[in-house]
Amino acid sequence: MKRRLLLVSNSTLHGGGYLDHLKSRGMLFVPYALHDRDAYTKTARNKFQTLGYEVDSLHEAEDPVRAVRKAEGIFIGGGNTFRLLKSLYDSKVVMEIRKRVMEDGVPYMGSSAGTNVATISISTTNDMPIVYPPTFAAIGLVPFNINPHYLDHDSSSRHMGETREQRITQYHEEADTPSVLGLREGSMLLVEGNKATLLGTTKARLFTRGKQTVEYDPGSDLSFLLTDAH
Amino acid sequence: MKRRLLLVSNSTLHGGGYLDHLKSRGMLFVPYALHDRDAYTKTARNKFQTLGYEVDSLHEAEDPVRAVRKAEGIFIGGGNTFRLLKSLYDSKVVMEIRKRVMEDGVPYMGSSAGTNVATISISTTNDMPIVYPPTFAAIGLVPFNINPHYLDHDSSSRHMGETREQRITQYHEEADTPSVLGLREGSMLLVEGNKATLLGTTKARLFTRGKQTVEYDPGSDLSFLLTDAH
Repeated sequence: MKRRLLLVSNSTLHGGGYLDHLKSRGMLFVPYALHDRDAYTKTARNKFQTLGYEVDSLHEAEDPVRAVRKAEGIFIGGGNTFRLLKSLYDSKVVMEIRKRVMEDGVPYMGSSAGTNVATISISTTNDMPIVYPPTFAAIGLVPFNINPHYLDHDSSSRHMGETREQRITQYHEEADTPSVLGLREGSMLLVEGNKATLLGTTKARLFTRGKQTVEYDPGSDLSFLLTDAH
Repeated sequence: MKRRLLLVSNSTLHGGGYLDHLKSRGMLFVPYALHDRDAYTKTARNKFQTLGYEVDSLHEAEDPVRAVRKAEGIFIGGGNTFRLLKSLYDSKVVMEIRKRVMEDGVPYMGSSAGTNVATISISTTNDMPIVYPPTFAAIGLVPFNINPHYLDHDSSSRHMGETREQRITQYHEEADTPSVLGLREGSMLLVEGNKATLLGTTKARLFTRGKQTVEYDPGSDLSFLLTDAH
């Protein structure tokens, strides 16, 4: 298993300082999560160039599958997760990205929605279902779910909508649902083969069906999440 | 058009004082949005009995479609909107509820998720996609979308996730998306035939594709939302 992933809770910038872990100089950028793909690509390209990376965009490729086949690295940016997943299926790159990352060791970086689609499914996204994807199953680079932008309950709030924890608990009321790693803003998960390490500046909260939730500090080894039991 | 709807932003209690508008004494309760249907029905039954209503629950009916056919009123409670919509399709009652409300004038009350499924689609729910429904199209008692529990942006927050307004704006970046009525907690929409009135204690915010957003006070006539142009 050659995978090398950097799954970031929030925006690109927070992952920027950790990009060396990916050991790649070129990046194929996937701007599908935002409506204005040109503008999004321009922003990402400028940002990555200051970090020393060359960026191609998938939406500029004549043949998206071929672009994935020759990518040296893949970066999927944030936005709306439903729009992103539907576009990935529409352009038929889901299986190709999976193959490139899992079999060929092409480094993968995701931020926010790009982190959601890297996991087993998008069932723990915070986004609105603005378009209908053909399935909620995602690229499946890891066998569990992540909730990016994880938020603790604000006990001073009078808002009656469900807390993030209640929403994840509802997910675990459904049959056979895997663990959910709540990545607070500022934290990210580095996966190298069968090793997973929490990086960044904030703790992460792990929700497992039928168990107590557990908090993990930055630096924690979370490799157990990569086994099928999770 | 005989429809008579009370579409509430948040919990049942807030709609309780307005139930007289529905002119019904019996209610068929739909507890599908929560996992524990027995417990949810017990809570709803107790609450409605104090208000003078008799409650049957759809999950206790041997034949759900027949139960809808003989209902004097329908109340769909809140919880997870994806779970609710999938269960409505699984039990084959979507078209029957629509027919009963639109053609037979059976009063309908929805709270939160029960308000989402009463509209054209669930595309503006706040909930997590914990299960995959066969479509996002919903019962369609009104031709626009509602965002329940609508939240204003807290400018003191450092959270980087999208604001509610940004999420609705993303919906309107997609083709042919109808207006979205942001119902803050404490507000509700009363629909009587082709007349729609905002009730409750808070303003509502209307988002229309390509137009400025507009705030409406309680008591406002929103009947224009019922025409096809919205």
